[in-house]
Amino acid sequence: MLILEKINQIIEKNNSLVCIGLDSDITKIPAHLQNEQYPQFTFNKAIIDTTHDLVCAYKPNTAFYEARGEKGIAELKMTCNYLQQNYPEIVIIIDAKRADIGNTNNGYLDFVFNYLNADAITLHPYLGQEALQPFLDKKEKGCIILCRTSNPGSGEFQSLEIDRKKIYQIVAEKVSHNWNTNNNCLLVVGATYPDELKIIRQIAPHLFFLVPGIGAQGGDLEKTMLAGLNNDKSGLIINSSRGIIFADNSKNFASVARIETEKLKNEINKYR
Amino acid sequence: MLILEKINQIIEKNNSLVCIGLDSDITKIPAHLQNEQYPQFTFNKAIIDTTHDLVCAYKPNTAFYEARGEKGIAELKMTCNYLQQNYPEIVIIIDAKRADIGNTNNGYLDFVFNYLNADAITLHPYLGQEALQPFLDKKEKGCIILCRTSNPGSGEFQSLEIDRKKIYQIVAEKVSHNWNTNNNCLLVVGATYPDELKIIRQIAPHLFFLVPGIGAQGGDLEKTMLAGLNNDKSGLIINSSRGIIFADNSKNFASVARIETEKLKNEINKYR
Repeated sequence: MLILEKINQIIEKNNSLVCIGLDSDITKIPAHLQNEQYPQFTFNKAIIDTTHDLVCAYKPNTAFYEARGEKGIAELKMTCNYLQQNYPEIVIIIDAKRADIGNTNNGYLDFVFNYLNADAITLHPYLGQEALQPFLDKKEKGCIILCRTSNPGSGEFQSLEIDRKKIYQIVAEKVSHNWNTNNNCLLVVGATYPDELKIIRQIAPHLFFLVPGIGAQGGDLEKTMLAGLNNDKSGLIINSSRGIIFADNSKNFASVARIETEKLKNEINKYR
Repeated sequence: MLILEKINQIIEKNNSLVCIGLDSDITKIPAHLQNEQYPQFTFNKAIIDTTHDLVCAYKPNTAFYEARGEKGIAELKMTCNYLQQNYPEIVIIIDAKRADIGNTNNGYLDFVFNYLNADAITLHPYLGQEALQPFLDKKEKGCIILCRTSNPGSGEFQSLEIDRKKIYQIVAEKVSHNWNTNNNCLLVVGATYPDELKIIRQIAPHLFFLVPGIGAQGGDLEKTMLAGLNNDKSGLIINSSRGIIFADNSKNFASVARIETEKLKNEINKYR
């Protein structure tokens, strides 16, 4: 199935633009799970089981799994396997922020699309289209290119201006107009920059945006929705990580995560 | 020990600017190793044992290990452990090309500097200094920032021009003048761009450059040395991967790798 089809189908089925960031930092998961044989997987499974009907995507960030070396990588794979076996219609985004030269990217392709069997990966644009071509060639997989990131200092390079265009605008133009020949490109645009989000929506009216920065990072949901929705009142995948998965630290963490997810889903849908 | 001290000491000891890229693609290592319990580690150990007195650094690229999931990650760790136990004076560069927002980078820090216990990591500049600060704060570890990459299409963003300065020049300036307060920053500059290398050396006379692109990628060694050496006839870490580790595919691969390493070392030293 084409990646856009999969995204649109699950958004329709669950009536949700919510993506849960499975940033399952081993030092932050509830104490009673710390002694499990597979603590990160056990935590993720509980979150997934209570929220799967409320989301369009899950987004594990590789950093929190690599931190534990091969154990964390194995639990990331267990998480992806569990999703594929039980909820195959949900999009799995691996937030890996990778990008190397052409032939080397094949290793990352094997990791994310063969080993983990995920649907999409986040990528740095700095090496250019030619380097990223092995990803762009995978028609059934999503290439989510960093455009305007959510961090406070993202403007250092991303807002440098060339002929009245900022670098993030140039990234949005190139991805939208040149890189997207397989209709499998998306952009990362932080909720912490609603003005930039609006500009990027004008440049790329048809692309999906992955939007981090709601919740702990302080992004404003109303501004994000007004600036970012496309003409079909869609086109956004709104990520929340800590605000959902670490909302509660007790044995009730998963049911509290469900409450927070439902709250976010409903809040988002007010604007659609 | 400060990272620059470690680099300078091993360059002096082994009289070598050679870095061997341990891009030990499981599909390319000799057939007789494919059935080993730890094929990538066994391959790396053989390369290391025959070349350790000829190099200043080893640089495994994570992509070739992640491709095999947790097995590859475990063999990457075995490789790093082996180096630390037997040749602790040699610099270990993890070519990971990472960069995420601030708190998330702590996961990558744990992976590269605690789990693998390596000396340096390669990093994308796109998110800016603020995001990379957790890396920059590690005084005893090297932050090797992508500046001008070796791939044919690297100019798509890196050569965009702002007030007569190209993006790669701005990266070099920022890293050299602002990010390097702990004297732990290096730059990646491809041997395939000797003219740009010369410009970057003028901008950053005191930084070490990690230079990929010699060998299979077609970079010219003479031009690289003339353009890139600093005033002390040093300041370059010249990487070769495929040209050394896959020079021979028989049971003699390690001794052929030694011959190729020595050839490169001597060729480089002609210009010093």
